[in-house]
Amino acid sequence: MNSAIILAAGSGRRFKSSIPKVFHTVGGLSLLDHVIHSVLTAGIGNITAVIRPGYERFPLKFANNVAFAFQSAPIGSGDAVKCALKCPNDPKPSDEKLSCADAPSGKWIYILYGDIPLVTPETLQMLSEVAKTCPKTAVVVLAMNSANTKSLGKLEPAATEKTIKSIIEARDASPYTATLPLCNAGLLVRKDVLYKLISQIKPSPVTDEFYITEIVRLAHEAGYICRYHEANAEELLGVNDRQDLAVVEQYFQNRMRKKHMADGVTLVAPETVFFSFDTILESDVVIDPFVIFGPNVHVKSGTHVNSFCTLEGADVQNATIGPFARLRSGTTIAENAKIGNFVEIKNSIVHKNVKINHLTYVGDSEIGKNTNIGAGTITCNYDGFHKHKTSIGENVFIGSNSALVAPVKIGNNAMIGAGSVITKDVEPESLAVSRVPQRNIESGSSKFRSRKSKKDG
Amino acid sequence: MNSAIILAAGSGRRFKSSIPKVFHTVGGLSLLDHVIHSVLTAGIGNITAVIRPGYERFPLKFANNVAFAFQSAPIGSGDAVKCALKCPNDPKPSDEKLSCADAPSGKWIYILYGDIPLVTPETLQMLSEVAKTCPKTAVVVLAMNSANTKSLGKLEPAATEKTIKSIIEARDASPYTATLPLCNAGLLVRKDVLYKLISQIKPSPVTDEFYITEIVRLAHEAGYICRYHEANAEELLGVNDRQDLAVVEQYFQNRMRKKHMADGVTLVAPETVFFSFDTILESDVVIDPFVIFGPNVHVKSGTHVNSFCTLEGADVQNATIGPFARLRSGTTIAENAKIGNFVEIKNSIVHKNVKINHLTYVGDSEIGKNTNIGAGTITCNYDGFHKHKTSIGENVFIGSNSALVAPVKIGNNAMIGAGSVITKDVEPESLAVSRVPQRNIESGSSKFRSRKSKKDG
Amino acid sequence: MNSAIILAAGSGRRFKSSIPKVFHTVGGLSLLDHVIHSVLTAGIGNITAVIRPGYERFPLKFANNVAFAFQSAPIGSGDAVKCALKCPNDPKPSDEKLSCADAPSGKWIYILYGDIPLVTPETLQMLSEVAKTCPKTAVVVLAMNSANTKSLGKLEPAATEKTIKSIIEARDASPYTATLPLCNAGLLVRKDVLYKLISQIKPSPVTDEFYITEIVRLAHEAGYICRYHEANAEELLGVNDRQDLAVVEQYFQNRMRKKHMADGVTLVAPETVFFSFDTILESDVVIDPFVIFGPNVHVKSGTHVNSFCTLEGADVQNATIGPFARLRSGTTIAENAKIGNFVEIKNSIVHKNVKINHLTYVGDSEIGKNTNIGAGTITCNYDGFHKHKTSIGENVFIGSNSALVAPVKIGNNAMIGAGSVITKDVEPESLAVSRVPQRNIESGSSKFRSRKSKKDG
Repeated sequence: MNSAIILAAGSGRRFKSSIPKVFHTVGGLSLLDHVIHSVLTAGIGNITAVIRPGYERFPLKFANNVAFAFQSAPIGSGDAVKCALKCPNDPKPSDEKLSCADAPSGKWIYILYGDIPLVTPETLQMLSEVAKTCPKTAVVVLAMNSANTKSLGKLEPAATEKTIKSIIEARDASPYTATLPLCNAGLLVRKDVLYKLISQIKPSPVTDEFYITEIVRLAHEAGYICRYHEANAEELLGVNDRQDLAVVEQYFQNRMRKKHMADGVTLVAPETVFFSFDTILESDVVIDPFVIFGPNVHVKSGTHVNSFCTLEGADVQNATIGPFARLRSGTTIAENAKIGNFVEIKNSIVHKNVKINHLTYVGDSEIGKNTNIGAGTITCNYDGFHKHKTSIGENVFIGSNSALVAPVKIGNNAMIGAGSVITKDVEPESLAVSRVPQRNIESGSSKFRSRKSKKDG
Repeated sequence: MNSAIILAAGSGRRFKSSIPKVFHTVGGLSLLDHVIHSVLTAGIGNITAVIRPGYERFPLKFANNVAFAFQSAPIGSGDAVKCALKCPNDPKPSDEKLSCADAPSGKWIYILYGDIPLVTPETLQMLSEVAKTCPKTAVVVLAMNSANTKSLGKLEPAATEKTIKSIIEARDASPYTATLPLCNAGLLVRKDVLYKLISQIKPSPVTDEFYITEIVRLAHEAGYICRYHEANAEELLGVNDRQDLAVVEQYFQNRMRKKHMADGVTLVAPETVFFSFDTILESDVVIDPFVIFGPNVHVKSGTHVNSFCTLEGADVQNATIGPFARLRSGTTIAENAKIGNFVEIKNSIVHKNVKINHLTYVGDSEIGKNTNIGAGTITCNYDGFHKHKTSIGENVFIGSNSALVAPVKIGNNAMIGAGSVITKDVEPESLAVSRVPQRNIESGSSKFRSRKSKKDG
Repeated sequence: MNSAIILAAGSGRRFKSSIPKVFHTVGGLSLLDHVIHSVLTAGIGNITAVIRPGYERFPLKFANNVAFAFQSAPIGSGDAVKCALKCPNDPKPSDEKLSCADAPSGKWIYILYGDIPLVTPETLQMLSEVAKTCPKTAVVVLAMNSANTKSLGKLEPAATEKTIKSIIEARDASPYTATLPLCNAGLLVRKDVLYKLISQIKPSPVTDEFYITEIVRLAHEAGYICRYHEANAEELLGVNDRQDLAVVEQYFQNRMRKKHMADGVTLVAPETVFFSFDTILESDVVIDPFVIFGPNVHVKSGTHVNSFCTLEGADVQNATIGPFARLRSGTTIAENAKIGNFVEIKNSIVHKNVKINHLTYVGDSEIGKNTNIGAGTITCNYDGFHKHKTSIGENVFIGSNSALVAPVKIGNNAMIGAGSVITKDVEPESLAVSRVPQRNIESGSSKFRSRKSKKDG
């Protein structure tokens, strides 16, 4: 099986951040996770991420799918790859000297950049296809044609078409390199060739760094063929500052928007809907403008999400959501339920035909079918120490402005009077109230007003 | 009077929808309704929509303005037009054979596409103008210059300038048609010529379908002149999938945004404001970013709509709305009223100088001038069975967190104490409360906390 | 010291507004204020704004930094400049005749347009640099290359490179002027030359208006050199209608977005975040899509502002805000506080670790550290006459749906039972409730329902 090394030790000074750049997120997923996810999806199982010591404390969704190698000093991508090859994930000679014998031929290693997050599994597989063109091929470069060539190595063509003889790093740029159209965005290298040649890489006379891209020159000089595969510049955009991050976010979101529309989802204004990397929407879902999807949302056919909603960790079935609704983690909304405005639902199961139309907080609750939750209802799930559960039966009517102090159970067909504070269970068919009789004080208002006015006078 | 046939029998497979494509909406109005609306506005009264049997169950705003003809099998636009000509809306010979004698010359028939929704009344009228150029004219094609020529018929020029001899459908595309710049987006045909020639249309040898566009070739061969009028490609974009739908929505919204700005409305960020087809805004209205207009809204001069608002069925007079406000159907807001954040108002009349600033639901209510509605007020308009009315007088002060259980009347100058549940009418000048005296339990909190902590321990 | 005259007497008929165009706003600041602000930042202290009588009643943030001159009749920019020169701000001969002697040479006067709001201080300073090129220079024109040349004067080149001999106003446009690429967007004129020549300006034979741009022709003819400095067309866009206003707003917002991202702020979707001219964000602040900043906001490192928030007059320290939160004037949020959804905070100090997670209004309050404010809590700060203060201590637990009727104090470590109306102070460590015992009426719900159903029957 092929393997992959992801270079992720850069700090990203231009981010001006306390978080290293590959841990900044796009679509709710870190840049590094994006690359890992693409590699996994392409069927490449053996993945090493090269990070700087200390970076392991930053959260990574797919941390369990990678081995970490640590590069202590920022002395170049060539050194980073060496760190990876010595990592336990990829068996190595114990004397740390890399020998060709350790690397069975026929295997290939992807060398990818943790700050190029949108590379697709299809493109990675395509590199493999190109690698098979001819047995003498040792390197396939992932190339793109980009106007923004300031920080990227340039591909220097060899005599034969579609082959190259070197990659010239940006720091060694010259008038000649400015004429070269293609840039480097990743490598696929034959494992035995990589092991054989990596130790021959010399540090750049300009920067004193070891560039892994030197492998191309070395392989070419050793008689191997180095090819390239060109992919879309949008897919291969590298992230060096927050503006790049915003551009990559936009590319990612556009990719998601197109995918969902192609799957039969109506996005009234695609540019105003933001997806998580894992959002699942079925056909005939309608999403109005200004909707945010956090991680782990599945919305089924027939659902209409109105404007100004955020959903995360929610499973929604043919329901009406919003406007101004927030569904949080652990929420299930059954068919034909209606979640209205200024409503927050967290960790709750809402059964079919339930209406929660206005100004309500439902947390840690289950609400039976056909139940109506009045405006201003609050489930008091937290007592300052623990969270408790609220259970509401079927066909229940909760009067407006009620507080249900959990743990509490409301039986089927029960009713709660408006403005009640419910602290004890309510039996099925029962009516519960906790209300003081209204007192009307004649002229009470006039007296209050004249008192207040005197004070002012 | 001229008449129009709108072809609307396509299912739109690429929508992956249970709803036929012409019933999908743009600006809250179905594609088919948009075309009908343009035809009506152009002064063309006699309209037949050709749909597939069963489509009549989908809602159509202008259904009363059209006759429906039914095309049972999808065997082409030529067949669809025949269905329309046989429809009762357009008197026809009883033996179903269409004869030229039935169609007095001098009348014209528009043949339009239900999935080209943004065609303007001005453009339709322009076709009529072109038709008058010369008495030998029998067809005027509505043309556009479009890069996206894959699904559209191409106009084949005739010898004379600005005339054509045929339309070549996309399914008969050839290298020759690829060189033709103009595409077909609708036809205006002399009624007598249409009746005379339609039966001569032969099915396409490729698809076995009857194309109405063959009428051009037949008319040209019969010695008539066929002209065209070119309009903007944005206006004539056809909708074949959800991505097209989103693009057309954007064109439509941009048209509305430009119109409102030209009329003296400030849109701080036009691209973030979404209009219904019928939104009326007067000059010196200011709309902040992120505002949604549903159908039937009229906003008068001097109103400021803050960010994150949705309005539908509302009449607003020189007031301040939002941020985070939702005005629903049947709402009237008088001058100098202030509707604040997390406030929903439905089917209610709000008089001048009223303040409803925070976290409030007002439904089925009337609120007199100068009244102040405290934060967290809920009108409990629904008892699980019926909706009831709340009537609040002038100069009333509703204390925060009150529930007004309808039906209920609060007289002028009355006050309601904070946290009250009001179930009975309150006389003018009166003060109403329903409140339990506060009980302070010394060290009650410390005891509760130590009890809780023990439980945990 | 150099001085500046800002021409701001135009009404802006195409705005269709009761507000003169320079008082319309971009980024929350009027067009005229933008120009004043740039002039001040460029270190030019002596500023006169020429307005129409009556315009002084429109609010201007930097009104104290300018003198106002009044132009009574709209007879041209040349007349407007004369009005400014006679204004007390700029000492003038008492007989109103402007004489060169009044204007010490070596000083320069900027003549800027109040409807070109985005001109930067850097560009203004650059004009000064150009002015120093040669002692014979008398005018430096601020130029731009713009396709939209309909309303702008064109620069007519003189023999020497980079010098001009006149500005031809749009109203005198000819086929010749159409070939000239550069337009006028402001002037820097030597003070003595301006005083000497301004009275020689003749009214245009076409419009009868005096154009200040004639100063170029007169200076050139008098043997002075007139130069120009070209700046970006985006920076110099003039505002003539609401569509221009929207475009300028977008340019301004893009400028702010780029600045904040360069400073280390993550904007997930920059195009959906709107800034005030004075917004301060520190590095490692994350702003999710759909956030609005009003004036006077400072957000410190580590803060995450979730979607759908509006902030104004707020100081936020390493906290979590939103989604759906509104921070209003006078609000301070300390570190690690959490302000959740459908929460409004006004004129309040929120100390560290405080949680205000749901459906709450906090006004005129101070909340001590570690306190938890339950869902649906309302501080009743207004009694219909005055605003009062609420003081909540540290480690307090406010039960859900409570109303705190100000003025009121809740001591440290106190608790408030859910649904309470608190009108009296609560001692530290105490528990306060105002609650009626819950009454469960067996079969009360069934009876209510059958009663209702009978009524319907």
